[in-house]
Amino acid sequence: MNGVESILTESLAGFAAAHADLVRLAHDPTFVARAGAPAKGKVALISGGGSGHEPLHAGFVGYGMLDAACPGQVFTSPTPDQMLAAAEAVDGGAGTLFIVKNYTGDVMNFEMAAEMFSGAQASVLTNDDVAVEDSTYTTGRRGVAGTVVVEKMVGAAAEGGADLAACKALGDRVNAATGSMGVALTSCTVPAAGGPTFQLGDDEMELGVGIHGEPGRKRVKLAAADAIAEEMIGAICHALAPRSGERVLLFVNGFGATPLMELYLMYHAAARLCAERGLSIARSLVGNYTTSLDMAGCSLTLTRLDDQLIELWDAPVHTPALRWGR
Amino acid sequence: MNGVESILTESLAGFAAAHADLVRLAHDPTFVARAGAPAKGKVALISGGGSGHEPLHAGFVGYGMLDAACPGQVFTSPTPDQMLAAAEAVDGGAGTLFIVKNYTGDVMNFEMAAEMFSGAQASVLTNDDVAVEDSTYTTGRRGVAGTVVVEKMVGAAAEGGADLAACKALGDRVNAATGSMGVALTSCTVPAAGGPTFQLGDDEMELGVGIHGEPGRKRVKLAAADAIAEEMIGAICHALAPRSGERVLLFVNGFGATPLMELYLMYHAAARLCAERGLSIARSLVGNYTTSLDMAGCSLTLTRLDDQLIELWDAPVHTPALRWGR
Repeated sequence: MNGVESILTESLAGFAAAHADLVRLAHDPTFVARAGAPAKGKVALISGGGSGHEPLHAGFVGYGMLDAACPGQVFTSPTPDQMLAAAEAVDGGAGTLFIVKNYTGDVMNFEMAAEMFSGAQASVLTNDDVAVEDSTYTTGRRGVAGTVVVEKMVGAAAEGGADLAACKALGDRVNAATGSMGVALTSCTVPAAGGPTFQLGDDEMELGVGIHGEPGRKRVKLAAADAIAEEMIGAICHALAPRSGERVLLFVNGFGATPLMELYLMYHAAARLCAERGLSIARSLVGNYTTSLDMAGCSLTLTRLDDQLIELWDAPVHTPALRWGR
Repeated sequence: MNGVESILTESLAGFAAAHADLVRLAHDPTFVARAGAPAKGKVALISGGGSGHEPLHAGFVGYGMLDAACPGQVFTSPTPDQMLAAAEAVDGGAGTLFIVKNYTGDVMNFEMAAEMFSGAQASVLTNDDVAVEDSTYTTGRRGVAGTVVVEKMVGAAAEGGADLAACKALGDRVNAATGSMGVALTSCTVPAAGGPTFQLGDDEMELGVGIHGEPGRKRVKLAAADAIAEEMIGAICHALAPRSGERVLLFVNGFGATPLMELYLMYHAAARLCAERGLSIARSLVGNYTTSLDMAGCSLTLTRLDDQLIELWDAPVHTPALRWGR
């Protein structure tokens, strides 16, 4: 980096320049909006959260997904004035849906923004992390990589003309159908701190880790990929209770420093475990989508699918980080 | 992982399962082919190389890019029988173009495969790494991330009906118009070795590093992002000698363990330096496309563009790792 003070500003400027065909960067307060926003007559989708989880959320701004994203400082909630400015900028007259990961700071600040925003609005709170109930920055379950699935599916519905109430109901439904769990092999390093967030021995891993390095279920000795996947898929299936024969989305998410070769290895292990449980993997996603800076590790996410959700998943999306179908 | 012996097999199986709509995995010998191959009447594009650089090359198999990719063991050339089997499997009757990164093992094995393959054929050797002439595994310059640009543009031309001679000439032209340079902040770790490939102090970096951790131009103290970008863009522009006002593709490639936030920071720095040299950034690509396992660091690539190359870049591509336009 060039400096702790400038890393976020410079990175966002680079992001906006590299994707100038898709997004616009607003300053004072900072938010990323879809090029051409507001989309008249469409429900506006807004998300946000601390930086350091890229491409979440700004990488998902664009056709078929978000209308705006508010990046906070690293691992720090964006401020209500960022959310309010974003909401006002992308309001297309059909209402605004805030998609909020369940972290205390995010929840509080989005609530304050919602109070200040005069337009029609609703919120979806994501809490897909099945690892722990309550955590360092959270009451209840944490919202993690499953948020990407919520944003994709609700984004498709909004693009297709769904109204605010339908988008809100769909978001809640997708969130309830989604479970995730993570594992860390190393800590991340917050730039301003300059050292690891937590200490982990070379032969240890944190099972159920949060996306800021928050403690998970247990600190254990390194295990084989199959055994790690078994713990994670087991916990997710315990929480989601999918029926045998049910179709699922299997999403393997890298935390930032895990080679793609290892993510596909985890996909292979998880897919076998899903098959053993009689689940049918109808859709897949593998890559770095909800990261924790330079943390080595990954999360697994399952979403229980039906015809409607598959159609929404397959619908065209045109964002910096997720792109298909047109 | 589950074991050193099985990591590649399991990872490839996971890759093929996750992208079953796009690719097919063949065994004994191993290669990845486009679903539906051979494409009748189209020049077949085949690449390959050691594993550990994912998504290169298998991630670029699909419509508008490669017809097949041959993954070797980690950082080890694939064997001639892999290449021969791939060539025979995807031969659409219009000739076969081998796209080969300039590493001694790859060059030798692709030459042996070419001798055994009876179909019409040609080869493009990529050598975009401007950092060093000759290196640990290479005579001449190394072929690195610029190979992605060659594969994308020649893939589009082949899809559009270009014949073998035209594809070969285009590949050579894109390669000559492309320059790259990398920097490593940490070593990678080859699974079978279990420890770092090279030693690098916490306050050091390797400027001009190769994608297997081969030595670059110099080992220096950590510097600010702007200073690193200046060294790299300076070296690339020295080699490519773009004219002021010329359009370029700016490609920031992560080596596997570098947060996206830092890649966009490097994009920002590199874009400013391009502007200072009077270059017009007409197209951009930012992400992990030619990796070195878990190496922290990145490479910068510039390709001098013209109307034809922009059209080929923009053409539809539908592969696991690069996807747009349809």
